[in-house]
Amino acid sequence: MKKSLLSALTLTLLGITAAPVQAAWEALPEVAPAPKDNPTTPAKVELGKMLYMDPRLSSTGTVSCNSCHNVMEGGDDSRPVSMGVNGKTGGRSAPSVWNAAFYSVQFWDGRVNLLEDQAKGPMTNPVEMGAPNHDHVMAKIRAIPGYQASFEKAFGKDSMTIENTAKAIAAFERTLITPNSAYDRYVKGDKKAMTAQQVQGMKTFAEVGCNSCHSGANFSGPKMPVGQGFYATFPTFTDNKYSKQYDLMADKGRQEATGKAADAHKFRVPTLRNITDTAPYFHNGSVNDLSEAVRVMAKTQLNKDLSDKQVADIVAFLGALTGPYPEITMPRLPATAGTSLVGARE
Amino acid sequence: MKKSLLSALTLTLLGITAAPVQAAWEALPEVAPAPKDNPTTPAKVELGKMLYMDPRLSSTGTVSCNSCHNVMEGGDDSRPVSMGVNGKTGGRSAPSVWNAAFYSVQFWDGRVNLLEDQAKGPMTNPVEMGAPNHDHVMAKIRAIPGYQASFEKAFGKDSMTIENTAKAIAAFERTLITPNSAYDRYVKGDKKAMTAQQVQGMKTFAEVGCNSCHSGANFSGPKMPVGQGFYATFPTFTDNKYSKQYDLMADKGRQEATGKAADAHKFRVPTLRNITDTAPYFHNGSVNDLSEAVRVMAKTQLNKDLSDKQVADIVAFLGALTGPYPEITMPRLPATAGTSLVGARE
Repeated sequence: MKKSLLSALTLTLLGITAAPVQAAWEALPEVAPAPKDNPTTPAKVELGKMLYMDPRLSSTGTVSCNSCHNVMEGGDDSRPVSMGVNGKTGGRSAPSVWNAAFYSVQFWDGRVNLLEDQAKGPMTNPVEMGAPNHDHVMAKIRAIPGYQASFEKAFGKDSMTIENTAKAIAAFERTLITPNSAYDRYVKGDKKAMTAQQVQGMKTFAEVGCNSCHSGANFSGPKMPVGQGFYATFPTFTDNKYSKQYDLMADKGRQEATGKAADAHKFRVPTLRNITDTAPYFHNGSVNDLSEAVRVMAKTQLNKDLSDKQVADIVAFLGALTGPYPEITMPRLPATAGTSLVGARE
Repeated sequence: MKKSLLSALTLTLLGITAAPVQAAWEALPEVAPAPKDNPTTPAKVELGKMLYMDPRLSSTGTVSCNSCHNVMEGGDDSRPVSMGVNGKTGGRSAPSVWNAAFYSVQFWDGRVNLLEDQAKGPMTNPVEMGAPNHDHVMAKIRAIPGYQASFEKAFGKDSMTIENTAKAIAAFERTLITPNSAYDRYVKGDKKAMTAQQVQGMKTFAEVGCNSCHSGANFSGPKMPVGQGFYATFPTFTDNKYSKQYDLMADKGRQEATGKAADAHKFRVPTLRNITDTAPYFHNGSVNDLSEAVRVMAKTQLNKDLSDKQVADIVAFLGALTGPYPEITMPRLPATAGTSLVGARE
């Protein structure tokens, strides 16, 4: 909050008057929130980046966090559903890691709260990284001599635990944010940051009612306390061709996590940031084209049929929510000192 | 050559006298050779880096060049044999991409000459990137709007061809060299660059005869014209336990490429640079530990039984051939503009 005040002050001192914007339009904070027991530090981020990129943590040595949440792309994998070890596929489309730090719950069904909790999931998922358990993951990490110094730097002596592994990965992920999009610059006062069509699309977006769910700085709903998710039923309106066409009723959403009938087909409202880079769309990756995704959402969530112009304008606006992505230097993954982790002829 | 003379001159002017070294010990050139029709340019390198890192070129969207030749690791994948699309595995261990630019032929069996030729192979190999043909690869690349500008910058208008794709990847790979290892600094005159044990190991390496094959600046044999490979029969001596223990006779090597009996069990002599980072070892990835690999080589190639000290000294020396690796910034892989390349529910 202090930072925002300071920025406003700076703008005023520079003689720039921020354009009057609706309070509803928020820019993304320039720093992601971190839990009290895991403040973001450079040493954690550096270690987390190594662990995030290291495929040797998987059972086959081929799947890293980055395989499905590729930071060189839109933070996902361009696939309908991800492909883990041995060509196995999961049931839902990989959510983007970009700006995931701003969610109050993680996964499509919000079944865990923090990035720290999320990071541990795929490691032992048999269709993702496929480790039999977290001890197995830690045995691999401990077998790589170079990791010890990085853990010590980040967490102190004797700190090679699965909890710290998850904390380091989460710390790295909290740097994966895109707070300086054309939209952000626009709402901060740079009226030239968005094109005329993007500005029109922003109005259409609000008029149609997209922001009844996709609100807030991350376009994933209002700011909530950690652990309290912002969910929507998808599809809400089922009396249309899309439910069947895109197989939208098959996944029970949050009900599959909680077992409660009231959670049927509820999903965490996903961010719209960088959505131009994250095709295909929806929890099941059933729609390839962003224009079609907008049309489907309007119909299934708001029971509205959009005109081609409305769709085009909204898609243009969504483009203003993309990037810029921070530059990332490739980490050096420490060597296994003359030993393979996967095992000869395994 | 000019550069080396200049460096020697600089050293002399600075009052530093290069240590007398055997002519046999060569430092790695600081620039990799490039074919006349593909000079290395920054635009090609930048495009090549994108293509090298892009898993969308594979049939499943999960396997890039970097998956098996990971530049964050030793330029390979820490696996005995690589794993391509759908969990399929190949027959040989992925050679390191680091310093591959210095080979006169490519692949374990030398079946192609240039990196340009090599780059095209895995794309259409059913157990690697799995594309049905190169047209399929190019259709994917052309479907990513952002690639067009990068091709134009590197090769001019209407240049999105498989030949230029391979040229760009090869240009990037020619930047993946490690000419400033402790060994290189040592042979250039910095007597403190290597430890006493590494210096001893260097002597042992020559005394034992390792450099009868692993000679030259890249420790992969003498400098040869492009297309003329330096091969060795492996194993040469088969009357020992190792042939069976590590299944060394199964792979017919270059014979499988040429069909000639005279090429049976012949393999291109691989570089020893960065070998501490490339376990497991040999064409079949059958040996995990570097010390064991040294022992096996001495026995199968020179019919010698090394002492533990000899092995330890040689392994120490091999450590002087590792890195430093250049820093690499992650490329931004251009977006698919609201369309998935893999296809919904594929």
